[in-house]
Amino acid sequence: MRPPSLLSLTLDSALLRIAHIADLSHLPDHLVIDLFRVGTPRGPLPLSTPARPPRQISFGVIASLEMSSGIQDSEVDIVIAALQPNLNTFFEAWRPFFSRFHIIVVKDPDMTEDLKIPTGFDLKVYTKADIDGVLGASSINFSGHSCRYFGYLVSRKKYVISIDDNCLPAKDTAGSTVDAVAQHMTNLKTPATPFFFNTLYDPYRKGADFVRGYPFSLREGVECMLSCGLWLHNADYDPMTHVVKRNQRNTTYVDAVMTVPLGAMMPVSGINVAFNREVLGPVMFPGLRLRNEGKHRWDTLEDIWNGLCAKVVCDSLGYGMKTGLPYVMRSDAEAGKALESLKEWEGVKVMDDVLPFFQSLKLSRTAVTVEDCVKELASIVREKLGPKNAVFTKAADAMVEWNNLWKSHGAHHA
Amino acid sequence: MRPPSLLSLTLDSALLRIAHIADLSHLPDHLVIDLFRVGTPRGPLPLSTPARPPRQISFGVIASLEMSSGIQDSEVDIVIAALQPNLNTFFEAWRPFFSRFHIIVVKDPDMTEDLKIPTGFDLKVYTKADIDGVLGASSINFSGHSCRYFGYLVSRKKYVISIDDNCLPAKDTAGSTVDAVAQHMTNLKTPATPFFFNTLYDPYRKGADFVRGYPFSLREGVECMLSCGLWLHNADYDPMTHVVKRNQRNTTYVDAVMTVPLGAMMPVSGINVAFNREVLGPVMFPGLRLRNEGKHRWDTLEDIWNGLCAKVVCDSLGYGMKTGLPYVMRSDAEAGKALESLKEWEGVKVMDDVLPFFQSLKLSRTAVTVEDCVKELASIVREKLGPKNAVFTKAADAMVEWNNLWKSHGAHHA
Repeated sequence: MRPPSLLSLTLDSALLRIAHIADLSHLPDHLVIDLFRVGTPRGPLPLSTPARPPRQISFGVIASLEMSSGIQDSEVDIVIAALQPNLNTFFEAWRPFFSRFHIIVVKDPDMTEDLKIPTGFDLKVYTKADIDGVLGASSINFSGHSCRYFGYLVSRKKYVISIDDNCLPAKDTAGSTVDAVAQHMTNLKTPATPFFFNTLYDPYRKGADFVRGYPFSLREGVECMLSCGLWLHNADYDPMTHVVKRNQRNTTYVDAVMTVPLGAMMPVSGINVAFNREVLGPVMFPGLRLRNEGKHRWDTLEDIWNGLCAKVVCDSLGYGMKTGLPYVMRSDAEAGKALESLKEWEGVKVMDDVLPFFQSLKLSRTAVTVEDCVKELASIVREKLGPKNAVFTKAADAMVEWNNLWKSHGAHHA
Repeated sequence: MRPPSLLSLTLDSALLRIAHIADLSHLPDHLVIDLFRVGTPRGPLPLSTPARPPRQISFGVIASLEMSSGIQDSEVDIVIAALQPNLNTFFEAWRPFFSRFHIIVVKDPDMTEDLKIPTGFDLKVYTKADIDGVLGASSINFSGHSCRYFGYLVSRKKYVISIDDNCLPAKDTAGSTVDAVAQHMTNLKTPATPFFFNTLYDPYRKGADFVRGYPFSLREGVECMLSCGLWLHNADYDPMTHVVKRNQRNTTYVDAVMTVPLGAMMPVSGINVAFNREVLGPVMFPGLRLRNEGKHRWDTLEDIWNGLCAKVVCDSLGYGMKTGLPYVMRSDAEAGKALESLKEWEGVKVMDDVLPFFQSLKLSRTAVTVEDCVKELASIVREKLGPKNAVFTKAADAMVEWNNLWKSHGAHHA
């Protein structure tokens, strides 16, 4: 045991006299934090926390004092799935926020028209030829919205941000245009707090903190691996809700980010999402494909399935996931077409099997990496869900194949 | 088995032709809902749902079509704990929202000054004499913020709303004064959805719905038993955070209500809270009292403990709890006094024992009423937490006593 440092003795002494110290505001932040650290008995983590201890981040117990989320251009790829040929409006609208970063555009392999993309971006386009070249004979179907996952595979950056090509920057309640990239990066670079709900939402946000009663032993949080952003105007509904509420638009700007609690499942939408590719890449795959999947968001469940897999893996490995800001503005050009998808939408039946499965799932303690977890998850999906519907067996096949693809093509970093 | 009705045959027939029906908007809402009910395979509830099936509410699968939250004056009591003698400003500010309802004021038994309350309210004041008269020799300490619980006991209404006497009505982002009573009642009278997180927050709110991927079998939700409102200006922090952030005020108005997911614990604040007294009354007690508890909110944990007990009971019985709107505006007249409480605040140590305890707690399936649950909870608290700190043994005593008090004095309805 090392002898106490002069600093720690001073802090101990200050703590004994704390009731007589009228003002701490002249102290540097790190001393105030040390003061509270000394005064904070750190209990054990709760019994229901993950099998492995969370990777702790060196944030102070008073949340936003040390917060900083400087983004390095070199650590982010923007991945865009091109489902329509003309991306001029899209890229011009996003230029102020995207132009610093490297952009990967993956063209829907079913689309034959040439892409229109304005100049002035550091951008690489991947097409069917690239996909076929990397994959060879693959059971993974990268058509439609699933093509973006090919971008996740060929990215070499730590973080990936992906936004649907029918979304434009939103405005916040003050009328300012939202920088979705900056907000996603703040979400990913500040800790998540999955073990207890904070009623004032993300405690690491400027102006917020942990409320009374929040245990100090949990205030360091865990690393956030996925940030699920939201959508104004045309909300992300299933075909039924789209048809019934054809004239309703989402106009409520909820100025909050929050961690989805440990054990609670959530429907991650792929419309506006960001994640830590280095860590979470092996679980960011297009696994579930409905039999009659079309090109509209409401035709798909691939992102919902993907998000449930990611949440189970994060819960098991002690990582966090956030939802809320940033918003994007979704076009409603497609509104009214949902009726075509209504009758045959297999998604209703599928989700009634999928959610109970994920809610009761516990991955083993021997799965200590994301790859391990995906491998185990694929085998449980095959065994438990496979007999119910062939789409689940195909999902398990895709998950195994993605794991192999990730090892050979994805697990490289800049 | 009954023969199919003409209506159900028509719906079946319509469903077969749904892809050819261009517009459903001329149909009455209840037929549209029936149409989707017929088309929705209702799977079993998830494996991790409560021991007992949720009490289902007859809301449609398309959430807000049938929503209605008319408040009857006769079903609500407003309960105010008077910790300061002059309540003129408080009541005048709340007059537009409180004057319809019966109000119970419970005077802090330690306060000797006479109360000042403006006229024009249907109001009854309870004092130390009333408390002593009902309780006789009691181990429950009703002084300070805990005095409001006496109001819960003597209320005869279905719902109770309680707001701290240093809070005034807040304004929303549009500048309108918030009717906290109406918002709490909407929260309580629309279903809660604890089994899956809805990224667009409360799906029963006007303009919102369940997002894509939300299983239809879970869209009816469960009954909401508690609504935890929030606070602008002076946030509800512990003494440490108050001292470090003495100049920070909460200015973020988050325009959302959400259900706290099944299994996730939350720190319910008693500052601005509403609940279904008929059902939840037996678990709305002042159990935990810190040794040096003062008269400030940051001195207390009674509401946090109460909220954790209520959440465990709601999770076990298949009820929901919501948090978010309405906001109230908290005075910061006390700001700066937190330093007095800092050194001796037992709350830090206590919460590091309390939260892991509640997170790992499972009530037995034989506890099928709130009373049963409280009885069982008290005995587990005594056994598991009692040896760690005498405040927990006292909490268990108070819980047992409250259960008896509730049977003799509280379990009466209008």
